[in-house]
Amino acid sequence: MGILRIGHVSLRVLDMKAALDHYINVIGMYKVMEAANGHVYLKCWDEWDKYSVILTEDKEAGMNHLAYKVEKDSDLDDLKKKIEAYGIAAKIMPEGTLPSTGRMLQFNLPSGHDLRLYAQKEYVGTEVGTTNPDPWPDNKHGAGVHWLDHALLMCELNPEKGINKVAENTKFCTEVLDFFLTEQIVVGPGGAIQAASWLARTTTPHDIAFVGGPRNGFHHMAFFLDSWSDILRAADIMGKHKTKIDVAPTRHGITRGETIYFFDPSGNRNETFAGLGFLAQRDRPVSTWTEDKLWTGVFYHLGEPVPSFTEVYT
Amino acid sequence: MGILRIGHVSLRVLDMKAALDHYINVIGMYKVMEAANGHVYLKCWDEWDKYSVILTEDKEAGMNHLAYKVEKDSDLDDLKKKIEAYGIAAKIMPEGTLPSTGRMLQFNLPSGHDLRLYAQKEYVGTEVGTTNPDPWPDNKHGAGVHWLDHALLMCELNPEKGINKVAENTKFCTEVLDFFLTEQIVVGPGGAIQAASWLARTTTPHDIAFVGGPRNGFHHMAFFLDSWSDILRAADIMGKHKTKIDVAPTRHGITRGETIYFFDPSGNRNETFAGLGFLAQRDRPVSTWTEDKLWTGVFYHLGEPVPSFTEVYT
Amino acid sequence: MGILRIGHVSLRVLDMKAALDHYINVIGMYKVMEAANGHVYLKCWDEWDKYSVILTEDKEAGMNHLAYKVEKDSDLDDLKKKIEAYGIAAKIMPEGTLPSTGRMLQFNLPSGHDLRLYAQKEYVGTEVGTTNPDPWPDNKHGAGVHWLDHALLMCELNPEKGINKVAENTKFCTEVLDFFLTEQIVVGPGGAIQAASWLARTTTPHDIAFVGGPRNGFHHMAFFLDSWSDILRAADIMGKHKTKIDVAPTRHGITRGETIYFFDPSGNRNETFAGLGFLAQRDRPVSTWTEDKLWTGVFYHLGEPVPSFTEVYT
Amino acid sequence: MGILRIGHVSLRVLDMKAALDHYINVIGMYKVMEAANGHVYLKCWDEWDKYSVILTEDKEAGMNHLAYKVEKDSDLDDLKKKIEAYGIAAKIMPEGTLPSTGRMLQFNLPSGHDLRLYAQKEYVGTEVGTTNPDPWPDNKHGAGVHWLDHALLMCELNPEKGINKVAENTKFCTEVLDFFLTEQIVVGPGGAIQAASWLARTTTPHDIAFVGGPRNGFHHMAFFLDSWSDILRAADIMGKHKTKIDVAPTRHGITRGETIYFFDPSGNRNETFAGLGFLAQRDRPVSTWTEDKLWTGVFYHLGEPVPSFTEVYT
Repeated sequence: MGILRIGHVSLRVLDMKAALDHYINVIGMYKVMEAANGHVYLKCWDEWDKYSVILTEDKEAGMNHLAYKVEKDSDLDDLKKKIEAYGIAAKIMPEGTLPSTGRMLQFNLPSGHDLRLYAQKEYVGTEVGTTNPDPWPDNKHGAGVHWLDHALLMCELNPEKGINKVAENTKFCTEVLDFFLTEQIVVGPGGAIQAASWLARTTTPHDIAFVGGPRNGFHHMAFFLDSWSDILRAADIMGKHKTKIDVAPTRHGITRGETIYFFDPSGNRNETFAGLGFLAQRDRPVSTWTEDKLWTGVFYHLGEPVPSFTEVYT
Repeated sequence: MGILRIGHVSLRVLDMKAALDHYINVIGMYKVMEAANGHVYLKCWDEWDKYSVILTEDKEAGMNHLAYKVEKDSDLDDLKKKIEAYGIAAKIMPEGTLPSTGRMLQFNLPSGHDLRLYAQKEYVGTEVGTTNPDPWPDNKHGAGVHWLDHALLMCELNPEKGINKVAENTKFCTEVLDFFLTEQIVVGPGGAIQAASWLARTTTPHDIAFVGGPRNGFHHMAFFLDSWSDILRAADIMGKHKTKIDVAPTRHGITRGETIYFFDPSGNRNETFAGLGFLAQRDRPVSTWTEDKLWTGVFYHLGEPVPSFTEVYT
Repeated sequence: MGILRIGHVSLRVLDMKAALDHYINVIGMYKVMEAANGHVYLKCWDEWDKYSVILTEDKEAGMNHLAYKVEKDSDLDDLKKKIEAYGIAAKIMPEGTLPSTGRMLQFNLPSGHDLRLYAQKEYVGTEVGTTNPDPWPDNKHGAGVHWLDHALLMCELNPEKGINKVAENTKFCTEVLDFFLTEQIVVGPGGAIQAASWLARTTTPHDIAFVGGPRNGFHHMAFFLDSWSDILRAADIMGKHKTKIDVAPTRHGITRGETIYFFDPSGNRNETFAGLGFLAQRDRPVSTWTEDKLWTGVFYHLGEPVPSFTEVYT
Repeated sequence: MGILRIGHVSLRVLDMKAALDHYINVIGMYKVMEAANGHVYLKCWDEWDKYSVILTEDKEAGMNHLAYKVEKDSDLDDLKKKIEAYGIAAKIMPEGTLPSTGRMLQFNLPSGHDLRLYAQKEYVGTEVGTTNPDPWPDNKHGAGVHWLDHALLMCELNPEKGINKVAENTKFCTEVLDFFLTEQIVVGPGGAIQAASWLARTTTPHDIAFVGGPRNGFHHMAFFLDSWSDILRAADIMGKHKTKIDVAPTRHGITRGETIYFFDPSGNRNETFAGLGFLAQRDRPVSTWTEDKLWTGVFYHLGEPVPSFTEVYT
């Protein structure tokens, strides 16, 4: 079956203490482990695998690597062949490279982002268990996010130089990793340039997304909430904690999701994303956003450029 | 008993057709009457008196006058005496000055805004009637606002020149019109300057508000919605209609209300305001917002200055 | 001005420990005081006076008395005269009859329910304070209700014997206590029998209500929540605590409120009531529900009799 | 890839006119076609294939057949072999057996329910299109459901006679059709009897479900709504239309979905189901509900038996 879903993000933060306050008390994650090297592992209440975020202290913020979980260990071997056949170098990192995690298949996307696949991570269970589970746990706190939902990577797009890492990543992910395209932004004469793409392996609107910009980077990782009401509560909590909000509660045209964009104390962008949006399906026609409606796609209510949104990232 | 609630706003618009499209199809009002002079009268579905907004076409946007309803016709005579005793000129305008409306007591607030009180307006009933009424009518459309909820007037505040029309209006409204203060912003050394005030006659957080600025003017009129969910739906409708949104869905610290600020096609600011917020009571202590938290009071989530909010008005 | 709002309910419970678990951990109140006689006083987070519920342990559940707050101490003397002039005995109970509470004017409604008015109760403040208050406190817990909102009293209605305590209470409350009628149910030939009534002093749909039944009693007291989303969360919490729910989340036709009815461990009925519903006003025409649509008025979605709702009370 | 999602339900109704009023004006579907034989085809606004419900007038209500869409036409041949190898007869019905629909693979579940798979159905597009789509269409009406979400089939369960069609269907669907189990109810000594099961092909909590009862039948088909707020609005619309509601708005423990159960005019049960609930995944451990908490699983708030729920079906 191949890729199941997003597995974790390994993220650089400037100050671990401030970062933990943010990811635990604002986002609502749980600290599950601190490695000897000071790396801290966190999970959300509705996740059953051991961690979905790794925080590493560094001098510059940003993403170290992004990982997806595959169904079977043998998928790693199969995908290694497919990736190499596509012309991209891939290597197996042995079990234990990351604690509580099986062997990983590592490679770089055409954009250069470090991507990893793994089939095994220590099972620790959700906070509600598997026998007569409550709909949410008593120890929910902060925004109480359910799970790490998706990541959006900024990819170099320079039509004059013929560089379009959005299109290259999209092609690779659909042809080799068997993602399917759900939505895209096209710009330029005849809409010939694929400037952004949203791709899924689950039947939610996206598990990964690529947006064109001046340089490759990490735009945001998103955490799932049930509803617009949870978005209000999350925004209230951000207000209490003086979290730096990038874009106040609104709806995306693309994915239809209800959203808040905000920054962790190191400047890494986070999102709380609510609602299913639509049922993503392989036979559902791709939604295409044209250059004139691009910002309606991004922020449906405002429908106007928010320059910081595409210019500021780590 | 005196003043019951806000009654109507008479507003200047630049283009009647565009204005009607906005107030009917976006806001969700109903056109109830067009006078021979071209003035158009509108109401909301949950209002029982004939109109709550009068639109008049003019070369400049802004408010003509603001009216509140009193309980008894004799209240007008009583209040006339009190207003005059306070040192403000007041006059009775005869029945029929406005169609379907009884005699009006007219006077100017210390800030110069034209205020009118009336006891009688033609009863036409809500859209759900009084016998076994549905909770909302089948002909609800647009954002489907319930009623005109309050108005916020910009008042000249120039401490250097000793001008504070916010404080003057507040004093007059509490001492003469028997409003009670629910919240205020204080600035300057020792918080000695009352820079904004929210006052009520109903038991909702405000029926009128005054905010200090460079000149007197009309900041916004607000329409009531039930909930944060209705705010999302209203914002979606604004997105569809390309309504110019000033501030995307968020929560006020002051009043706790859930809000969208946006402009009619003439540039008059509107608000959809949702939720009761708190039960306003004469013995509830006034909430005071200090200069350093002023913007948290205005937009609780962002907590940062939105300069256009106090600089742009009609 | 007279009556401001509901002040408190004094309630008999069978088991104090179980009652406290319910009112604190499910409803979300705060224990503020335990008197030497074992009476326990509780308040909600958004109330500024010291308490709104008094629990007293007894062998039978039910209401001891119901109290409303008036604006001025002199209102008590004025109302005493009006009540006595109406033909109902009234007495002043001295300050300290209830702890932290000023003198009380005591009398029985025509239905016999013990009603008390007071002007003074110790001010302790809401949980968010009065300076730059957050919209909700960090120590919110359980359903996190805002305030005691209203009470509904069951009143003997026996048309054959010519007994209608609903109509008698309504007449007394409107004529003497200056409540205004917002909604009513009428039954019998020509709708001549007022079988239920909802009355307000604030501008919310009701501060007290009377419903006809086989005997006088206590139907429920209601606590305010902001919205339908809070109703879901409250119901989830009741599910976790195995609270006995009477009627699952639904909407009232009458008042339009969103509601859950449930029982405290002693069998006293509680309600969580959400939303403003409509702006109650003295010039808003009374909504009348006819016998054939009576249950649509009570439970708008089901629209069918729920016999336990009018037969089971304390 | 095999099965994508639920495709349609063919349903018997007693009165076509009443049924259409219900499915169009309450549920919010669109009539897309009426065949010469009087069969009526309907779809939801967010579906892109031509229809998801077929209504046929008959003397008895109930389900004719249930259909799922597969990804590729060749999947039908592959699955035919697998089904026959499992020992169940399967046949190909030629293209045009149903209008606008490709060839169908027909077989009966172990419980006897008529199931059909198809790969092709005429594409007509959603009501919002594929270019810069709005989040919802202007012609949304009634409850405005997004799509047919799942069906629940009642299956004979008689442990004394050794009959358990729930377990047989579950085994068949997981082993042959590659559904995965997300939740189950187990009863009897040691929880040895699988009394109900929820299975998915998408990553939503269920695409089909089986519940044990006295006889095989059709329990309900469910339509998707975004959120608890939409559930309130749907219930309001049912109140207006006097739709017979089975269970008022509440939450499921199983799937966590927010729900209303109600009946079409012929007595076929419908559900509006809101929210994603949880992200269903093949490596997510199955949630198991035990006999003592069975009703908490079904209706989380009440947690008590609602006998009609398992006894009344078509």
